[in-house]
Amino acid sequence: MNKPNIVILGAGYGGIMTTVKLQKKLGVNDANITLVNKHDYHYQTTWLHENAAGTLHHDRTRLPIKDVVDFSKVNFVQDTVVSIKPEEKKVALENGELDYDYLVVALGFEAATFGIPGLLDNAFTIGNINSARLIREHIEYNFAKYNNETEKKQERLNIVVGGGGFTGIEFVGELANRIPELCKEYDIDRNQVRIINVEAAPTVLPGFDPQLVEYAMNSLEARGVEFKVGAMLKECTPNSILIEKDDKQEEILTNTTVWAAGVRANSLVEESGLEVNRGKVEVQPDLRAPSHPDVFVVGDCALIMNEETGRPYPPTAQIAIQEAELAAKNLAILVGGGTHLESFEFMDRGTVASLGHDDAIGVVFGDKKLFGWSASVMKKMIDNRYLLKLGGLGLLLKKGKFNIFH
Amino acid sequence: MNKPNIVILGAGYGGIMTTVKLQKKLGVNDANITLVNKHDYHYQTTWLHENAAGTLHHDRTRLPIKDVVDFSKVNFVQDTVVSIKPEEKKVALENGELDYDYLVVALGFEAATFGIPGLLDNAFTIGNINSARLIREHIEYNFAKYNNETEKKQERLNIVVGGGGFTGIEFVGELANRIPELCKEYDIDRNQVRIINVEAAPTVLPGFDPQLVEYAMNSLEARGVEFKVGAMLKECTPNSILIEKDDKQEEILTNTTVWAAGVRANSLVEESGLEVNRGKVEVQPDLRAPSHPDVFVVGDCALIMNEETGRPYPPTAQIAIQEAELAAKNLAILVGGGTHLESFEFMDRGTVASLGHDDAIGVVFGDKKLFGWSASVMKKMIDNRYLLKLGGLGLLLKKGKFNIFH
Repeated sequence: MNKPNIVILGAGYGGIMTTVKLQKKLGVNDANITLVNKHDYHYQTTWLHENAAGTLHHDRTRLPIKDVVDFSKVNFVQDTVVSIKPEEKKVALENGELDYDYLVVALGFEAATFGIPGLLDNAFTIGNINSARLIREHIEYNFAKYNNETEKKQERLNIVVGGGGFTGIEFVGELANRIPELCKEYDIDRNQVRIINVEAAPTVLPGFDPQLVEYAMNSLEARGVEFKVGAMLKECTPNSILIEKDDKQEEILTNTTVWAAGVRANSLVEESGLEVNRGKVEVQPDLRAPSHPDVFVVGDCALIMNEETGRPYPPTAQIAIQEAELAAKNLAILVGGGTHLESFEFMDRGTVASLGHDDAIGVVFGDKKLFGWSASVMKKMIDNRYLLKLGGLGLLLKKGKFNIFH
Repeated sequence: MNKPNIVILGAGYGGIMTTVKLQKKLGVNDANITLVNKHDYHYQTTWLHENAAGTLHHDRTRLPIKDVVDFSKVNFVQDTVVSIKPEEKKVALENGELDYDYLVVALGFEAATFGIPGLLDNAFTIGNINSARLIREHIEYNFAKYNNETEKKQERLNIVVGGGGFTGIEFVGELANRIPELCKEYDIDRNQVRIINVEAAPTVLPGFDPQLVEYAMNSLEARGVEFKVGAMLKECTPNSILIEKDDKQEEILTNTTVWAAGVRANSLVEESGLEVNRGKVEVQPDLRAPSHPDVFVVGDCALIMNEETGRPYPPTAQIAIQEAELAAKNLAILVGGGTHLESFEFMDRGTVASLGHDDAIGVVFGDKKLFGWSASVMKKMIDNRYLLKLGGLGLLLKKGKFNIFH
C-alpha cells in the first residue's frame, strides 16, 4: 500500500505547528510528510514589529526550521509556492511541482492597501524578516542623513504608522523606546522626532476594553507618540502622507510610512479556485475546505465564524496554533483510516498588546484586565509558552523572553 | 595691561593639541584663550574609516572637548567659522565675530574632487563623524534592501573606494573584515559582494616600500578586495562609476562610491587673503604666516617643505600634532614678551597603515619594515600614545585600543 503524501505549505505559526505535531503522531511508515517554505527559517510574526523598531534583533525572532522539524521524518523543500491546483492535487513551485494526497494550506497573510494611492509603492509593511529589518535600517538611514544636510529635512525624523490595531500600537510602543537611543546615536534632539499613529476608527484598538485603550494611549503619549484617530489616510508619497479628518485635509512630511492597517489572506488561496469568502476559505468544523476534503486550511487563510458574535475570529497567532493542532490530529485520523474527525473549538486564552518593553495591556482568563508591568510579564509568558510548545525546553531557553525585571 | 586674545580655530589634531599645550603653559592672567569648533567634540580623523566601515563605533573615535580642555582656562565657542579677516584681526562666525591678537588656524582639510563629473554629488567622503556614520548606514541600508527586491540589484552590493592612498587602503581593510558580518546580518552570500579599490597611480600606497605594498595587496586580495590600479575615475553617478584604464573604459554598477583620493586645505584659508601655495599657507620655520606674524597655521592648512626631498611633507596627524606643540610653545614665548621663537623640525616616528583589525604594514625607527600582527600592534600603540599625550592616562584607558590579542 502506498503511503499518502501530506504536503504542508508555509512554515509560519500554522504550518510549522502542524508539521511538528504531525511528526510526533505519525511514523515514517505512515505517510510522506513534505513541508514547503520560502526560507529555511520559521519566524514569529508577532515579534516582527520589535525587529522593525530595532528593539530586538531579528535572529531572536527566527529559528532554523531544522531546529524543530525532524528532517529524518519530514522532507523540507525550500521553495516558493506559485499556485495551488486542487483539481489536479498538485502544487506548483518556482522550481518544481509536488503531488499531494492531503494538503495543508498555511500561507499566511499579505498586506492589503485598499487601493489607497501611493501606499503600495511608498509605504513599508511589517510582513517578514526582510521587510522588518529594512524598516529598522530605513529609519536609521534617515537619521544618519539628517545631520549631513545643510537644509534640515523634517521628513527624515517623522515616522507615520498607519493603523491603530494590534500591530500598529505594538510598533509605536517599541518606537517610543527606540527613538531616544537613535537620537543619541545620531546626535539628534528627541523633540525633533515625531511618531504619529493614524487610525480611521474613532479609537485605536477598536474592540478592546475602553479603559485599557485609555491606559495605552496615555502611556504612549507620555512617551511622545501622537495619535490621529478618526483620520483616513488618503495618499502616500515617498516623502509625505495626506490624511483627512472631519473633512479637513492635512499633509504630514515623512519618508517613513509603515502600513499596519490591513492584511488579507495570501492571494494564492483566492487564485487556487478553492471556494473563498473575503479571500479566505471558510473551513468546515474539521478545518477542511468544503469543496475539497483533502485540503486543510489553517491560520490567516482560514475563516471561522465566531457563533457568539456572528463575526469571523480575527487572524491571530493564537488561533492559527490551535487550528494547526487540530489539523494535525485530524490528518492523523485520516491517515490511520478513520473517518470521524474532530471539530474546532477556539479556546480564548486572552489577548495582550505590548506597549514597549515593560508595559502592556490585556484581557486574560475571560475578563481579567491587566495593564502595565503585570501585563507585559503575561505577554512574555504567552510568547514563551509558544516556544515551549514548538520546540520544548531547549528552544524556550534559547529564544525565550526572560527580561522580566528590567 | 590688557591680556592678549588668543583664538584657535578648529579642534582637530592641530587645534586641540595647541589648546591643551597652551592651557598648561599659560595662566589665566597671561592671556584669554578661545577655542572655536563646529562641534562640542574632538575626533580622531585617522579612525573615521573604521566608523565608516562599521568596525568601530564613532563614540570611540570622538571625545567631548570638555574632557581635555579646561573650561576655567579656555573659552569654548561652539560655532562655525565663516571667514578669517587677517587685516582686521577678526574672525567671522555664523553667530558672531571674534577679535584676536594671536590666531591659530587649524581648520583641517576638505575633499578635493578635481572636477570629476558627478563626484561631488554622488560620492561619499570620510571627513567627519556625520559623514563616516552615514557611509556605515548607507552600506547597511543597501544590504537591507537587497533581499526586498524581486529583481536583485548588484549595485547595492558593490562598494567602490576611489583612491589607494592611506585612507583608501585602510578603509578597504576594514570593509574586508566587516562585509562577512553584514552578509550574515542580511542573509547575503559573501561571494555576491564586491569591494573595489580604484587607484590612478600604477600602484596603491605610492611612495611606500614596494615589498610592503605587495604584502598589503596580497593580504587584502585574500580577503576579497579587488584592485584597479592605473585606472582613472572618469565619472560618478548615483548607481555607477566609469573608470578608464589603458584607454579602455569600464562601467561598474555601485550605489556606494567612497572618495578617498583627494584632500585639500580648508578653502577658508585661501579665501582669507593669507598668502597661499597650493591652497595652504607655506609657514615660516616658527609656523607663522609670512605675511602675518600674528597668525600661526598648523595641520593640513600649513605647508612645510621637506628639505631632503624638496617636496612638502604630506598632511598627517603626526605632523599636525608636532606643529601644534611648537605653535603652543612659540605662542607662550610671544605672550611672555619674548621674540626668539623656535623653529619646526619634523621628527619622523614612522608610518603604519592598518589593513584590518589584526593586520598592517609600516616603516618605523627610520627604516625598520613591519607587517602583519606586529605592525598592527605598533599601529595601536601610536594611536594610544596620542591619547596619552592629549588627555593623560584617564583618556587612554577610556578610549585606547587594547584589543591586541584578538
